[in-house]
This record gives sequence, C-alpha cells and structure tokens, in this order.
Amino acid sequence: MKKPKTSRSFASDNNAGVHADVLKAIAAANDGHVVAYGDDPYTARAVKLFREHVGKDAEVYFVFGGTGANVLGLKAGTEAHNAIICAQTAHINVDECGAPEKFTGCKLLPINSPDGKIRVDQIKPLLHEVGFEHHVQPRVISVSQATEMGTVYTPRELLALGKFAHDNDMLLHVDGARIANAAASLKVKLKDITKDAGVDILSFGGAKNGMMYGEAVVFFDRSLAKNFKYTRKQGTHLPSKMRFISAQFEALLSNNLWRQNALHANAMAQLLAGELKKIPQIKITQKVESNGVFAIVPQKYVALLQKHYFFYVWNEEISEVRFMTSFDTTEEDISAFVALVRKTVK
Amino acid sequence: MKKPKTSRSFASDNNAGVHADVLKAIAAANDGHVVAYGDDPYTARAVKLFREHVGKDAEVYFVFGGTGANVLGLKAGTEAHNAIICAQTAHINVDECGAPEKFTGCKLLPINSPDGKIRVDQIKPLLHEVGFEHHVQPRVISVSQATEMGTVYTPRELLALGKFAHDNDMLLHVDGARIANAAASLKVKLKDITKDAGVDILSFGGAKNGMMYGEAVVFFDRSLAKNFKYTRKQGTHLPSKMRFISAQFEALLSNNLWRQNALHANAMAQLLAGELKKIPQIKITQKVESNGVFAIVPQKYVALLQKHYFFYVWNEEISEVRFMTSFDTTEEDISAFVALVRKTVK
Amino acid sequence: MKKPKTSRSFASDNNAGVHADVLKAIAAANDGHVVAYGDDPYTARAVKLFREHVGKDAEVYFVFGGTGANVLGLKAGTEAHNAIICAQTAHINVDECGAPEKFTGCKLLPINSPDGKIRVDQIKPLLHEVGFEHHVQPRVISVSQATEMGTVYTPRELLALGKFAHDNDMLLHVDGARIANAAASLKVKLKDITKDAGVDILSFGGAKNGMMYGEAVVFFDRSLAKNFKYTRKQGTHLPSKMRFISAQFEALLSNNLWRQNALHANAMAQLLAGELKKIPQIKITQKVESNGVFAIVPQKYVALLQKHYFFYVWNEEISEVRFMTSFDTTEEDISAFVALVRKTVK
Amino acid sequence: MKKPKTSRSFASDNNAGVHADVLKAIAAANDGHVVAYGDDPYTARAVKLFREHVGKDAEVYFVFGGTGANVLGLKAGTEAHNAIICAQTAHINVDECGAPEKFTGCKLLPINSPDGKIRVDQIKPLLHEVGFEHHVQPRVISVSQATEMGTVYTPRELLALGKFAHDNDMLLHVDGARIANAAASLKVKLKDITKDAGVDILSFGGAKNGMMYGEAVVFFDRSLAKNFKYTRKQGTHLPSKMRFISAQFEALLSNNLWRQNALHANAMAQLLAGELKKIPQIKITQKVESNGVFAIVPQKYVALLQKHYFFYVWNEEISEVRFMTSFDTTEEDISAFVALVRKTVK
Repeated sequence: MKKPKTSRSFASDNNAGVHADVLKAIAAANDGHVVAYGDDPYTARAVKLFREHVGKDAEVYFVFGGTGANVLGLKAGTEAHNAIICAQTAHINVDECGAPEKFTGCKLLPINSPDGKIRVDQIKPLLHEVGFEHHVQPRVISVSQATEMGTVYTPRELLALGKFAHDNDMLLHVDGARIANAAASLKVKLKDITKDAGVDILSFGGAKNGMMYGEAVVFFDRSLAKNFKYTRKQGTHLPSKMRFISAQFEALLSNNLWRQNALHANAMAQLLAGELKKIPQIKITQKVESNGVFAIVPQKYVALLQKHYFFYVWNEEISEVRFMTSFDTTEEDISAFVALVRKTVK
Repeated sequence: MKKPKTSRSFASDNNAGVHADVLKAIAAANDGHVVAYGDDPYTARAVKLFREHVGKDAEVYFVFGGTGANVLGLKAGTEAHNAIICAQTAHINVDECGAPEKFTGCKLLPINSPDGKIRVDQIKPLLHEVGFEHHVQPRVISVSQATEMGTVYTPRELLALGKFAHDNDMLLHVDGARIANAAASLKVKLKDITKDAGVDILSFGGAKNGMMYGEAVVFFDRSLAKNFKYTRKQGTHLPSKMRFISAQFEALLSNNLWRQNALHANAMAQLLAGELKKIPQIKITQKVESNGVFAIVPQKYVALLQKHYFFYVWNEEISEVRFMTSFDTTEEDISAFVALVRKTVK
Repeated sequence: MKKPKTSRSFASDNNAGVHADVLKAIAAANDGHVVAYGDDPYTARAVKLFREHVGKDAEVYFVFGGTGANVLGLKAGTEAHNAIICAQTAHINVDECGAPEKFTGCKLLPINSPDGKIRVDQIKPLLHEVGFEHHVQPRVISVSQATEMGTVYTPRELLALGKFAHDNDMLLHVDGARIANAAASLKVKLKDITKDAGVDILSFGGAKNGMMYGEAVVFFDRSLAKNFKYTRKQGTHLPSKMRFISAQFEALLSNNLWRQNALHANAMAQLLAGELKKIPQIKITQKVESNGVFAIVPQKYVALLQKHYFFYVWNEEISEVRFMTSFDTTEEDISAFVALVRKTVK
Repeated sequence: MKKPKTSRSFASDNNAGVHADVLKAIAAANDGHVVAYGDDPYTARAVKLFREHVGKDAEVYFVFGGTGANVLGLKAGTEAHNAIICAQTAHINVDECGAPEKFTGCKLLPINSPDGKIRVDQIKPLLHEVGFEHHVQPRVISVSQATEMGTVYTPRELLALGKFAHDNDMLLHVDGARIANAAASLKVKLKDITKDAGVDILSFGGAKNGMMYGEAVVFFDRSLAKNFKYTRKQGTHLPSKMRFISAQFEALLSNNLWRQNALHANAMAQLLAGELKKIPQIKITQKVESNGVFAIVPQKYVALLQKHYFFYVWNEEISEVRFMTSFDTTEEDISAFVALVRKTVK
C-alpha cells in the first residue's frame, strides 16, 4: 500500500481521527488560563448545548472515555447487591474487561440476543427472584443504542423497556457510544430516544463520531446525579483541563455536526452493504441500521482481504466479519474495497 | 479585567493551556486511520522515547489522567490487605476523593510532614505490625516528586527510601505529576530520580507540564506490569484513540521540551518568591524547589488579591496561600501580580 | 401437625440441627481460657485431622460460613480482571447475592448445565479471548461437589477438569458444601476427590453435614495460601472463639462421623426417590447421587403437600421440586411423607 | 501450671469460653428442623427481645462476628466516596485488616485520642472540605463503646456527637463489641446509650460477653436498613443455621444475663486495678470504666509475668500493657495474679 498512513480501514470507527471542526475548536480553546476541572466557560456552554438537545433538566457530566462513562453511570444507579440486565453482546458485558463488576460490585445478567437488542419478554423471567436475599436484585436495564450488531432500537421499543423498568423499580441505561448514528438512522432528535423514551442514564459517545476523546454521562432523573461529582472524581474521570473536552462537544453539538457525521457514516455503511449484497459469495447477517455491516465472508477470502484492510472477525465459527464505517469514510474507500472483494472472490 | 480569558492565574499549573508544540503534534497525528487502543506507530515511538529517558527495560503504559495513573499503578503493586504509606499532604491521600482506597481496597497510612516529604525514620514505626493478620500490611511507600508543597526529593533521599522499601519487601512508588519540575530543579536526568534511585512504579505527569491530557504509568520492575494491560482496561483507562496521547508525549519528550517547560515554570516560581520576599507583610513558608510558592499572606489582603487573580488558600488557620507557576507564565505576569500585591498591602 | 417443632422437613439440609457428637464436642471445648483467633490446641488438632484426610501438605483455614469460604477461596486464586467459570446453577452464581463479584471484582462465566455439572468441552470456547485486554481472563474453574442438582463428579471427571485447568494456567476450585455426600456416594476417600483429583482450592462444608456453623478453606497449592490469613481477616471471617469451630471439625472428622452422616443422608434420598418412582404422577428428573431428589410433581399437588412439609419449587415452569435429606432424616420421616404423597395424588 | 487448660488469662475477653446459660440455650435449640436463614421462631423471639431493650422500632440483623457487624453496618450508611471518622485507636481503624475500606470503599479519618474517645471539637476541622469533589465526604462518626482503652462515653457525650452528626448530615455509628460493659458501668439501660442518645447504627457484641459467636447490627434509623438483608447476604454474613445465634441472644438478653456478665467483668477490672495501684512499680494509665486495665509495667517484669499469664503489650515504647477481665474471671484469678505480680516486682 502506497499511503497506508492515510488509508481508511473498516476495523472500527475509533480507528478514524478527529473531525476538522473539532480539532479547530480544540485549538481555539487553547487561549490563556481557565479554572481547571470544569468550572470554565467552555464547559458551561457545552452543558447548555447538551440541554438544548436532550432536555433542559438533564444533568451532564463529562468524562475521559466510554468505558468510564458506562461504569460511572451504572454506579450512580445501583448498589452492590443489584444486577444489571443487558444483551450478551453488550460492550459492558464483553468488551470492558469486567470494569462494571469491579467498580459497581454488581452482577451482569446477560440475555441472549442474535441482533444485539433485548425485549421485555426476555427480561421478565429475571425478576422471579426479586425480594429474595440470596439473589442479586435487578436494578438496571442497559441497552446499547446503536447496538454492537449495528441495529437500532426504535423510540417505541425504548419506551416499552423504559416503562417496564419503571414499573418494576428499575432504571433504563443507554450505552450511547453510537447514539448519534442511531438518531441519524431513525431521523429523530436526540431527545426522542433519550428523555422522551424514558431513559434515566445515558452514556453519550463522542470518540466514535469525530471527537478525539471525551464522553458524557447524562442523567434524566436528577436525583441519580446527586453525588455524581464525587463518583466521577473517585472514579478517576474528572479531567483537569476539562475545557478541551467541552470545546469538542461544543463543536460536535453545533451546526448539526453530530448528525452530519453520523448520517455520513451510516450512508457509507448502506453503500458498502448494498455493494456486498451483489456479491453472491457474501451474506449480510444483520440489518444495516447504523454504521456497521456484518457479513459472512468465506474463510479463505478473509485472510486475503486482511492483507490490505484491517477488520475484525466477529464469529469465527461461521466466518462472520464486521465492517465499520466512520465520519471520514469516502465513497472511494468503499468502491476500492468492494473492487478488492470482487477480485478476491472471483 | 480587560482580557480575563487570556490572563494567567497562579491557581494551578493545570489552569494553563497546551504548549504550541504539543498542539502541533496532535494536529499532525490527525492523519488517516490507525489501529485503536495503542497498536499504532505513534505509541510505539512514544514508548521508545520514554525508554531513552528512563531506561530501556521500563514498561510504559499511557492513561487518560493523573488520578488514574496513581490508582492503577498502586493497584499493580498491592493486594487489598496491604497499606500504602504516604505523606499526609499527598495527592493520593487528600485530593483523589478516596480513589486509591476504592480501587485497590488498601488503607493509606499518612505520615505527618510539614514540607510534604517523608523520611525512613517516620516509616519504621509503621512496620511494627508486619505479620499480624489483624493489621494491614505495608507494601508501598508512595512519594510525590515534586511534592504538593513544592519541595523536591534529592536522588540520595529517594535512594534511601527505595533501599528501605526493598529491604522490607516493599515498593517505592512516585507520583510524578510534576516530575519534570523536580528533574529540572535538581539538574538531573529523569533516570537519575526514577530507575537509578530505586523507584519501582512511576506516575509520569503530562498535563501539568504543557500537555492537554494523558499520563504514563511506568514500571521499572517489569514483573509488576505482567497483568497491567488488563488492570488498565478494567480500570477504564485504555484510551481508544491512543495516538493523540502518544503524539503529545512524543512532542514533550523530544527537543528537551519537557525540561524547558519545567525550567521555565520553576524559574517563574523563583522570580515570584524573590519578589514576594521583599514584601515584609508576606512570609514564604516552604523552600521553593519547583513551581509552587507557599506564603502567608495576611487574611485581609487575600480577598482583595483574589478579586483579580484566582489562587487557593492552603491553610486557613494561618492564612497560607499557594501560588503555582506554569510553562506559560511570563515575567510580565509576575511583575503585574507583584505590583498588585505591593499596592494591596500598602 | 402435632409436633411441628421436631418434624423434619425436606426443604434443605441446613434446616436440620446439629449432630449429638458435634454438640458434645462444643460443650467439651467450653473449658477455661484459650488464645483467641485460632492459636489454640483445638484448632491445631483439627487442622492435623484435616491433613490426615486430604493430604499432609494442605493448608487449612476455618471460616464462619459457606459463602465466605467460597468467596475468600476464590479471592486467593484470582485478580480482579479474571473470570470464574462455573455452572449456571452454581451456588456462587445464583445463591450468594453477588458476593463473589463484590469481593473478588471478577466476572462469573456461567455454563448452561441441566445436571449441574460442567465439562471441558463447554469450557474451551470461553478461552478464545485469552490475552486480549478487552475481555476478562478466565482463571478459575469452579465446580460444586456434590452439585446443586444432587449429581456427583467422578474422580475421573474432576481429573479431566483439573488437567485442563492446569494446562491453561487456571485453577480448579471445588465448592464442597456437600463434599462429604459426594465422597460417601462415590465410596472414595476425601483425598481421592480433592488433592489427588487436581483440586487447588476447596470449600469444605460442615453446616450441611451436622455441624452448627463453620467451614474450611483448604489449599492444595500452598502458594495460594501465602497471604490468606490476611484475606480471611479482611474478609471478616476470622472467628474470635475459633476453638468452637475447630472442636466441631474434630468431632466431624473423627470416628468417620462425616461419612456416616453423609451415607445416611444419601441413603434416605435413595429411599425417598425409590418410593416416589413408584408413584406414576411423579417423575424423578435428576440422577440421585447424593442427598437431593429432584422431581416433577404436578402443580395442583405441590400446594397441598406444602401445607404439611416445607420444600422448594426449583423450576416453576415445569413444576419441578427439590427434596433434601439430611443426617437426621429417618425412615419414618420418609414413609410418613410418601404416604402423604400417595394420599394426595390419589 | 497444673491446669493450664482451665486457667483464666487476662489477654482478651474473647479468650474466655461460653456462659453456661448460653450453652444451655444452644443445646435446647437443637430440636428438630426449622427453616434456615432466620425465618424461625428463635430468631423472631430474639429480635423481639432486642426491641424491648433498645426500642420497638429498631431493625435487628444477626451476623457471625464483630468485624462483619461493623463493616456491614458502616456499608449501610455510606457510599464509596464517603469518609468514616473514628479514633486512631478504633478497632475498625487498626484491628480489622482494612476490612472497612475493602468492603465500603470509604476512607477512614482517624482522630488522635489518648483515651480512645473523640470529641466534637476534633471532628469539626474534618468538615472543612465538605462539598469539594476532590475530597472524601465525611458521613459517619464511629465510636467504640466501651472504647478500646477501657473508657466509656456518657449518654451526654454520645448525645453531643449524635447531634453534631445529624446537624451535619452525618450518622452516628457505635462499635458496641463491649456495649454491655459500658451500660453496666454507666448504670443505664441499653436504650439510654443507643436510641435515646442519637445512635443510628449499632454493632451489638455477643462474643465478648459470654456468647460463642454472633453479633447484631441494629438500625435506629429504619431507612438505613432498607436493603440490609441483601448487604448481609452479599457480605457473606447470613448464617444458615441462624437459630443457634438467635438462641444465644435470647439467653443473653433474658434474666439480665447480659448485664450480670458485664457487671462482673467490670467489677473484676476494678478489683485488679485497685490491687495494682497499690504496687508502686506499676502505674495505671487509663480510667478503668469497663473491663480493661491499662498499666505501665516495667519491661523487665513483663516477660516474667508472661511466662505464667498471657496478656498483650499495648505500647512497647512506654511498656504499657493491657489486662482484660471477662464474665468468668474470679476473685481468685485476680488474687493469684496480683500475688505473682507482687512477687515478681519485689
């Protein structure tokens, strides 16, 4: 490869860099001194912007990264004897090296889910043991939006989960590492799939949508945020030079940048999936509703393709792979890759 | 104040922004896709540079922030029944909201220390209970270099602590949030006050010396790093777009930038202290060995000064305040501030 | 019921009281002063007896209860980023209110197991992610002997699990709350299904086999016990008047009492199962290999029977119930209960 | 020594055995089957008796041991970012191997206290940092009653601490391992130094006052007990054969046995102290208000005495030793020991 440095892979949306507007905002924020730890005008403005998007009563806290956002948000809603219900495929269940258990003390109760989504009917049996002290007590339903399988919960599906949660003295948590992709896919506002859908706690992702670092923990039930400033600090996620996260969020939430980035990534996934569908040796395995494409690619081709493009095998047994697109994926990236696939399988 | 945004306060070295060379390195790293989580050329180069500074066998891991670096480094060296010995004034003891206890399970055993430094003779009595299961078992001596009181351990002092630690089956941990200031002050190499002084675990600070975010956990005893990649991930401190931390460290550790920044901040502290000493109403309370100046300022003046400059009262009882300088403090900042002080106390 | 106080239920083997010989040993130990916390002759003798049964190199520590024994034993073999593999039905997974996660920080990886036993082939797929820092790292295989479903691992089955564990840098842990029942059922020595079967860590149960309270954590790999005295104390399981636990174990491990109690309970389970099998409306669902009998009893009969005898419904969906026998169950208890069942289903 | 087995030492009140009435109650409880885990008539009666002593609204939970009682009670009143204020000498601070930190995640803030008691004036400075997220947030004042130094808080002193706690959104916790000795010493009811003194959480000790094992966690603020049944189980302190703890408490709280035992132990301490005071080489160092006597015994005599009697050196630097009396100490024990002391120092 001539220019490997600038080539765009399909491995992950966090293999991409930073959107130009975000980088510009960082540079602009590098102006003199401001008080550290968030008591600065950048942070005040970014929080205000968040509230315009998700509701004026939301409590918004910035943290360094996504696993931190999930773990600290879950901690705010649980006690150690609680259980957190999630999909088997959830990032909190398989990709965080046990961080939720270590920091919250809770057990995760994973639900088998081929498409990454969970339904009320699957949760009900887990409540049989409520009230018996020998068993962990379910307290949070955690869903990923978009899911790790590229699928998206509709507002109606979230509402059903939220209602069920609240009817059973539980909370609805959303791991929104890709919530922008979900909102773009659904053509709804962020508020429609958070506050108005009954969500109590949200991890709002920045890094997978064009930011350098920084995520937000957003509480729609303000009582949950009562002691969160201490939880964030004790949880090692209070950034000293906070303004540089805040400035990024300000850029992302202004001028519809968050939606443009997500729409573009989603469109590239549709383009890729559409082209791959035309290749008979390849079988798309999940609905393409955000920026991920899951497909069965015969094993003999996988290694050949990986010589040129880095991507992950998701399920070795059936040779299912994952292709992720990002805000900076181009149509040329897609056509070059598809051409390679066509050549390879011929 | 006409331009409050760009005024430089003396509140904290993390109220400063980012050094221009560091910002430039970040922008340069925003070039195409690289593998996430540290498997990228920026990180490889930054680790190599670290080893040139602190020794070729060092194991180097980047994390988001300083509290995270301390807590995860300490976790790598302890079991939950251990105790960590530190100064009463240590950041881990008073400024991390109990993060070390929460994450390691250990008790901290603070030692009273007016100058922020601890000595072997103060540690010995804490070993009386070694071997008795009713008591926590001391395992780590943790020192801050430079200390929170602006003082600095000499290599000889560190060596004595390191030897005592190793003679008693303990480890020496350094919270090096300001290790650059210490090395600059002592006119030594980083290796002289880390590996060659018997240090086992080091938190190497970036943010207080011109970086935007990012710290390093450095292990000189490689066996301690055996499982650290898991501890870092479970500890929520594995940055996805790692390259942007690595690029900053590459800039900081190149062209002597780390030392230039620290020398400058230290020099500004000397200048400030020298001027304040001339004012009879003010009494410098600590040796000025790095970038902090501690001084008793009569209470009636403190509020007047704080109208113009943000800084912290360290000890209300004696009206002791702390002034911190940073890489971007200018001689004009100092003379303007000193002029205000002179005018105020007149 | 005329004498409900003395009636023997089939709810659980810990609804029984204390064997007369154990009670006698407690009374005999109530003689003057001895040093607290285990430095007493009763404890020395009990540990010696344990070693005669399970091997002279075993490290033996007494604790208050079974959940404590499991949790502390598992803690001794793990770090927080590890995973513990067990059956879905394991006591550590469903009956300890998340105590293992809370105290060890580890994730449990449950394996579906209709008969309560797990096999090497089920464990293999869980090792796919070894070495990747995003995922918890399997470190312990934990099995219950006898299982919660009343089944028993043969020495050969344990050997296979132990070998697989050790081949993969893992440990074999046995929750032996009913290990006496297993050994009695298999007609083997305790050593045959512990040390000689490759077991590394054992919870040895007393309370379900005629003791009042007290369990033992036994290490066959002595290096795992290195810091266990601290873990036990920090884990709140160092009994002050230790001699009263030790005296009970001395009684249990003398004169074959442990085996007599277990043989009797097992025989009563066989008797009960044999009689129930003759009743066509009832279907035994698990092999009866220790002191538990699992059976499908039509739902309409369950409530009628529970008016007279307390027992647990195990699986509501299929109306499967559990009957446990204990060291003090009599043939009269069985025949009275079976007569009631016959009358009820008629 | 002819009968070392039955000799009574002065090392600790838990070197004693079990009071005859308690042992009798245990034996009487060994009658047939009852439901495990506390749903039995013994436990119902014991809880009722507790309420007669400390107030009808108290929530009472039995656990295995004293460290467990302290740790779980403190957990019920705290979140991980809180701090627990206590005396430097507190059992939770020096004798529990860091169990409170491990289980609650909280930091302990010890206060220097020569007599084992803490005062409101010492606590006030620790509240300077309330509201700042960098610092742990004080939430519990924990006192030992009687203290580890043998002294006792008066009801008025407790009231002052309780009022201060509640005025500052904090709780008052009492480690009552020797609360019976305190009540006996003060000639008050248990209610006078618990509920009526503003105590929120109490560890009520049994083992040091004639029980075999078993302590109680008592909540006077019922909201704190809301989830305690889960905390107890997850904290590994739900005894399966609960009735045997309950039966002991029933005996202890009946017929004034708890007070008789405590009065006797206290009287023996007074007798011992009175005799030792007459020996000029020995200096009593603490007020003798419960069942402990602290005295400086010249070092050369300590070893000689320890040949015959086991007791602990409390402070090696000044050769201060501790003598504890218990419910079964006799006047003959005292006179024999004093005779030996007299002989030794001659």
